[in-house]
Amino acid sequence: MAFDFDQAMPFARNTLYARLRAGTGAEWGAYVGHRFVQELALGTLPQDEFVAWMVQDYLYLVHYTRAYALLIYKSDTVAQMRAAATIVFGLLTDEMALHRLQLAASGISESDLEQIPETVETLAYGRYILDRAQSGDVLDLVVTLSACLAGYGEIGLRLLSDPQTVLEGNPYAAWIETYGGAAYHRLIRNGLEQLESLSESHGGETRYPLLLRQFRQAVRLETLFWDAGRTSLATSS
Amino acid sequence: MAFDFDQAMPFARNTLYARLRAGTGAEWGAYVGHRFVQELALGTLPQDEFVAWMVQDYLYLVHYTRAYALLIYKSDTVAQMRAAATIVFGLLTDEMALHRLQLAASGISESDLEQIPETVETLAYGRYILDRAQSGDVLDLVVTLSACLAGYGEIGLRLLSDPQTVLEGNPYAAWIETYGGAAYHRLIRNGLEQLESLSESHGGETRYPLLLRQFRQAVRLETLFWDAGRTSLATSS
Amino acid sequence: MAFDFDQAMPFARNTLYARLRAGTGAEWGAYVGHRFVQELALGTLPQDEFVAWMVQDYLYLVHYTRAYALLIYKSDTVAQMRAAATIVFGLLTDEMALHRLQLAASGISESDLEQIPETVETLAYGRYILDRAQSGDVLDLVVTLSACLAGYGEIGLRLLSDPQTVLEGNPYAAWIETYGGAAYHRLIRNGLEQLESLSESHGGETRYPLLLRQFRQAVRLETLFWDAGRTSLATSS
Amino acid sequence: MAFDFDQAMPFARNTLYARLRAGTGAEWGAYVGHRFVQELALGTLPQDEFVAWMVQDYLYLVHYTRAYALLIYKSDTVAQMRAAATIVFGLLTDEMALHRLQLAASGISESDLEQIPETVETLAYGRYILDRAQSGDVLDLVVTLSACLAGYGEIGLRLLSDPQTVLEGNPYAAWIETYGGAAYHRLIRNGLEQLESLSESHGGETRYPLLLRQFRQAVRLETLFWDAGRTSLATSS
Repeated sequence: MAFDFDQAMPFARNTLYARLRAGTGAEWGAYVGHRFVQELALGTLPQDEFVAWMVQDYLYLVHYTRAYALLIYKSDTVAQMRAAATIVFGLLTDEMALHRLQLAASGISESDLEQIPETVETLAYGRYILDRAQSGDVLDLVVTLSACLAGYGEIGLRLLSDPQTVLEGNPYAAWIETYGGAAYHRLIRNGLEQLESLSESHGGETRYPLLLRQFRQAVRLETLFWDAGRTSLATSS
Repeated sequence: MAFDFDQAMPFARNTLYARLRAGTGAEWGAYVGHRFVQELALGTLPQDEFVAWMVQDYLYLVHYTRAYALLIYKSDTVAQMRAAATIVFGLLTDEMALHRLQLAASGISESDLEQIPETVETLAYGRYILDRAQSGDVLDLVVTLSACLAGYGEIGLRLLSDPQTVLEGNPYAAWIETYGGAAYHRLIRNGLEQLESLSESHGGETRYPLLLRQFRQAVRLETLFWDAGRTSLATSS
Repeated sequence: MAFDFDQAMPFARNTLYARLRAGTGAEWGAYVGHRFVQELALGTLPQDEFVAWMVQDYLYLVHYTRAYALLIYKSDTVAQMRAAATIVFGLLTDEMALHRLQLAASGISESDLEQIPETVETLAYGRYILDRAQSGDVLDLVVTLSACLAGYGEIGLRLLSDPQTVLEGNPYAAWIETYGGAAYHRLIRNGLEQLESLSESHGGETRYPLLLRQFRQAVRLETLFWDAGRTSLATSS
Repeated sequence: MAFDFDQAMPFARNTLYARLRAGTGAEWGAYVGHRFVQELALGTLPQDEFVAWMVQDYLYLVHYTRAYALLIYKSDTVAQMRAAATIVFGLLTDEMALHRLQLAASGISESDLEQIPETVETLAYGRYILDRAQSGDVLDLVVTLSACLAGYGEIGLRLLSDPQTVLEGNPYAAWIETYGGAAYHRLIRNGLEQLESLSESHGGETRYPLLLRQFRQAVRLETLFWDAGRTSLATSS
């Protein structure tokens, strides 16, 4: 495909993130080009699968937010604590609230969300990032979370730039425009700048083999996570 | 079936563990009576599935051991630290060494074990127990791990007492005899006595609804884990 | 003295907090009636000691905030996560910012604050609460932090109701009025309601002996902490 | 003094540890040449202070052992887990048992040890290492603990090589000979080899400024800790 990473995300050029992303090889393509993503782009994804997936995405976000709470705890300076707290606050008041709003439109309330079981994909991914967040240092934490943060933005940009993507009449157009949009890409830029800064102070280049291992695991879990909606539908019926 | 829990594990009668086990309802039966267990009992389980499952069981044990290391860290007294350290040491020097020995007989070395990817079931279960071990207190930790500890012993006893179980010529007879045997049941008895003692000091009865939630999650993950061998074979081929 | 706890903090009557407070016996009086507090009330506290103490209080707040970040991570529900994140955000943007403002008026900048060493009292108290926050569950965490949260409010009320307290011309009148004021007492009320609710769900009454042990340790460390200003002046000169 | 580090601990030459030790400057001398150490060397230390100090050293060892339990949990490989578990087991069954034996000879039982309050120095140092062990990665953990591990060995060697040290009739001769002895120095050598290996895989050189900050804090806390016996006697009388 014509997607050019260096051009699409120029702020990531020659960063540790760019090296990790390239280091995952074909696994990266399996993540950002997954069947689920293609069906989003064409608008052919069954709605019940999308809703079931979004429920799981919400349940995942709980643990993603808990991992960022550990970043507050693990920060070396008050300025870093404030930056991490801003992310946590944004996730709780914006991103998760938006998910609840969208799910409410499909008839799923906040108390429903507390009762729906996590699928095995959600459990695996949510708890994996928490394990790395607790057992590693701030760099391990931020590297592991970056597969989600920056990967979704790349997917948004890929779909927006892909001539095969259908936006008109596509029920998932808002989703695509959110992750490909300027607001989300400012978040990514901030996140990757923070990652690069931590890489410099915390030995990112030397630690590359170990960091790649956990980044790759996160990418594999992202790939599996696209099927969380299907798994949820299969086990609840 | 004729299995009588109170008679088979008399030391667990009227304990918090017994209440939790009963509280999982039909999910408990799905765990201890899984297709994989039935095939072990009859000796009909394909060997490659058993070996693939045992590899995943070894990878799971790494995280089970890490969770017990957190019990040393979280203990309130030096006596509790010593008891937890004995478990950790036993896991590292006996149980994991035995797994390595058995896997070596199937041509899988320790360095192979470090390369084989964890399946989604292994990731989910291993990281779930670590999350409860870090975010809860000693009682949360011990309750969550008890589904594995005592469940395997119950399976061993069930199979040994079941007239349909075939031991003669069954390649899995040693597995059945280990988990149904006296040495393992001394471990369970110690573990459940510790759980009951922590339940008394840490408010187990009051906390029953929250404890059941995590015990039930562990039971569901045990049930999913029986398929880890199949998942591993399906994704590696 | 004429201070009547049940009348001054009626929302705390018959709570676990009230029982813990009473359980510390004379150690509670040593904390809330410390020489430093008396000198604040009379306005006789040397200003350099107050400034040095406030610097240490700021350095302590860093770890107090990190402990509340662990409460986000350890919460059982999204509603609890939001409540904990609100506290963290308030500490970072209000309380710590106010400290910085006041210290700036004494010529101490934010970058100075990063260079001033913590005294042994600050290290002991800040790291003790973090240890309980990580090794215990949400109830351990909230109980340990309540000695600080509610104790300061009680000191404020005691000083405001004490006829011997001098407010006019007292350079510490603002400090007294802050901790005795309505805004701070709303925070305490929320905090103690949360503690009582967690006590009910997490077995507070059964766990009383263990909870008292850590609450008492926090009270002792509060008492030692009043001397952090003197220690800082003694070691920096 | 005539003490030559490179000659006394040749295995530490040109390591990260050697650089950190040199980086603390005069603070290192304040630690290894403390008044308490000098009085040990001359045999003039009051016995009640030594006993009170050893009680605190035992209480500190509880948290030092908990920190090493976190190393099991944080290890990247099973081999590293085994090495860390061996340290934990050795601390619980050898070093702490030896302390209990020696304290029993002074009339202090294990149950007494559970009742004696930790001094502020013990609280500060024990909880500081746990904070770094939880919030950092394996390298942060091992660097912070090395100030204790290798510092005591250096003190032992310094005293043994110092002509002013009195061994004959010195009640503390056994203490000096233990920390200057071959068995303890094998432990140090293993520990520093592990540190150097982790430094290579985890970016030790790049992280030097941050690592020095926590190593220096540990050295300061070691220095304060020599007075823990005095503090304990002062507050218990």
